[in-house]
Amino acid sequence: MSDAFFTEYFYYKSLGFTAKIKKLLHSEESPWQKIDVYETERIGKLLTLNGKTMVSELDEFVYHEVLAHVSYAVARQHRRVLIIGGGDGGVVREFVKHPDIEQIDLVEIDERVVEVSKIYFPECTVGLSDPRVRVLCEDGIKFIEEKIDPGSYDIVIIDSTDPEEMAEGLFTDRFYKAINRALSPEGIMLAQTENPFLDEFGLKKIYDNLRAAFPSVESFTAPIIIYPGAYWSFAFASKKFRGTDLNPHKQAQMQKLQQTLRWYNMDWHRGAFALSNFHRKQIGQE
Amino acid sequence: MSDAFFTEYFYYKSLGFTAKIKKLLHSEESPWQKIDVYETERIGKLLTLNGKTMVSELDEFVYHEVLAHVSYAVARQHRRVLIIGGGDGGVVREFVKHPDIEQIDLVEIDERVVEVSKIYFPECTVGLSDPRVRVLCEDGIKFIEEKIDPGSYDIVIIDSTDPEEMAEGLFTDRFYKAINRALSPEGIMLAQTENPFLDEFGLKKIYDNLRAAFPSVESFTAPIIIYPGAYWSFAFASKKFRGTDLNPHKQAQMQKLQQTLRWYNMDWHRGAFALSNFHRKQIGQE
Repeated sequence: MSDAFFTEYFYYKSLGFTAKIKKLLHSEESPWQKIDVYETERIGKLLTLNGKTMVSELDEFVYHEVLAHVSYAVARQHRRVLIIGGGDGGVVREFVKHPDIEQIDLVEIDERVVEVSKIYFPECTVGLSDPRVRVLCEDGIKFIEEKIDPGSYDIVIIDSTDPEEMAEGLFTDRFYKAINRALSPEGIMLAQTENPFLDEFGLKKIYDNLRAAFPSVESFTAPIIIYPGAYWSFAFASKKFRGTDLNPHKQAQMQKLQQTLRWYNMDWHRGAFALSNFHRKQIGQE
Repeated sequence: MSDAFFTEYFYYKSLGFTAKIKKLLHSEESPWQKIDVYETERIGKLLTLNGKTMVSELDEFVYHEVLAHVSYAVARQHRRVLIIGGGDGGVVREFVKHPDIEQIDLVEIDERVVEVSKIYFPECTVGLSDPRVRVLCEDGIKFIEEKIDPGSYDIVIIDSTDPEEMAEGLFTDRFYKAINRALSPEGIMLAQTENPFLDEFGLKKIYDNLRAAFPSVESFTAPIIIYPGAYWSFAFASKKFRGTDLNPHKQAQMQKLQQTLRWYNMDWHRGAFALSNFHRKQIGQE
């Protein structure tokens, strides 16, 4: 395996990202997908699902800090948090940094992702042992549609793979409406929504679905170097708040916390919601 | 050439970007570098210099609008503009949209880049025929150090390749000080400064060099999908202004112009300067 490279093709297989690897650390077919972990030459360990990059030691902090702290900083209520997907545990690790969150439910369809992450990405899964965290290995769609009382959560994070195969249902208006029901009156939902430049999955349709379910829908961006084209968009949806409506009662707390974070700070948070003309057009805004 | 791919390796050759190509349209060894133009499958034509991506039809508007309009929107004086590098003409195309600029000098060391761009990227070079534009095919360092009177330009853009080989001298404190001398008292300089995640060329040193030459130095970002890791940083340096000090007398004019642009708007401009903790650390800020 000398000079071996992992390569992921995307944008209708016309572009690709490649990383030199030292070693294949783990490979298995779970009931849901192929799970591989590589030791790369320069960007640490790399987790892929069905050949798509998910987590690397180079930049996992960006994705995980962004999803957790952008939602928390705006939320007025934050007793109960739900994460759908995210079996690597990185988003949970960031949420447990907030002492006033009482319950964090992680609903990951593939328990093997959780187990493999515990072995190879312990710095991501470290939060899973927090007593406030429940790890539920089941289908996120069924969970939200069948098991949850209205208003159960204050924050819902959709930390999913691309809108295809088993994750396709996580981008529909039906699912977003179910999330709206599951949220408390001041609730907030965040979701990853792909790269606006490489619009392979219909970004405008995804945002139309969000707008059908929530009165306030915005988009923001953060770079994930290992993802296709790196320029990554996220949706912020709420019944009441805008993405830049930071909770005034949390500013001092967030000011203190952000000194310990590697990516997130409140200035960056506000700036990330200022979209280019191109991004606005791609999501059908204005 | 069926299923042929162009691949650029970066970050000490440990990562790569690859694009499926239909056809090699042009290839030559100029006195300065290897110049190739590909017709790709999905992202239009692609210009590479020494095997490094420079311009694609997918995203050239981002880079070119950003360099021209971020500098113009802040500048209080903008009679004379200098662009060092940028032989594809894209930055010039954006500057000629401002009727109150009187002179635009493009100093590109390799006239073949200009000629090849005229053939394959006419949408970029369209501004070069504007009567205010002078195209000077010479060494940007010698030009600025030997030929320019102090205070000659109001805006200087360094649209260069990576800090190596012939472009290395464009990232030194000596060069930045020469640019400072060439600028008018309210002058502004912008430069591309690589990807903060893949710090192959010493980002902190580059920003230290800038800080040695200018009292006000900031960084901002914009995505260039075809560049290594896509998350691209730029330096804003000035004798007097901060990057978010938009000229209040230009707001109405910029408001009108930005309706015709594909990327730039003033909200995005302000947001792009709000840096993550990571970015601040990489450039040695605070």
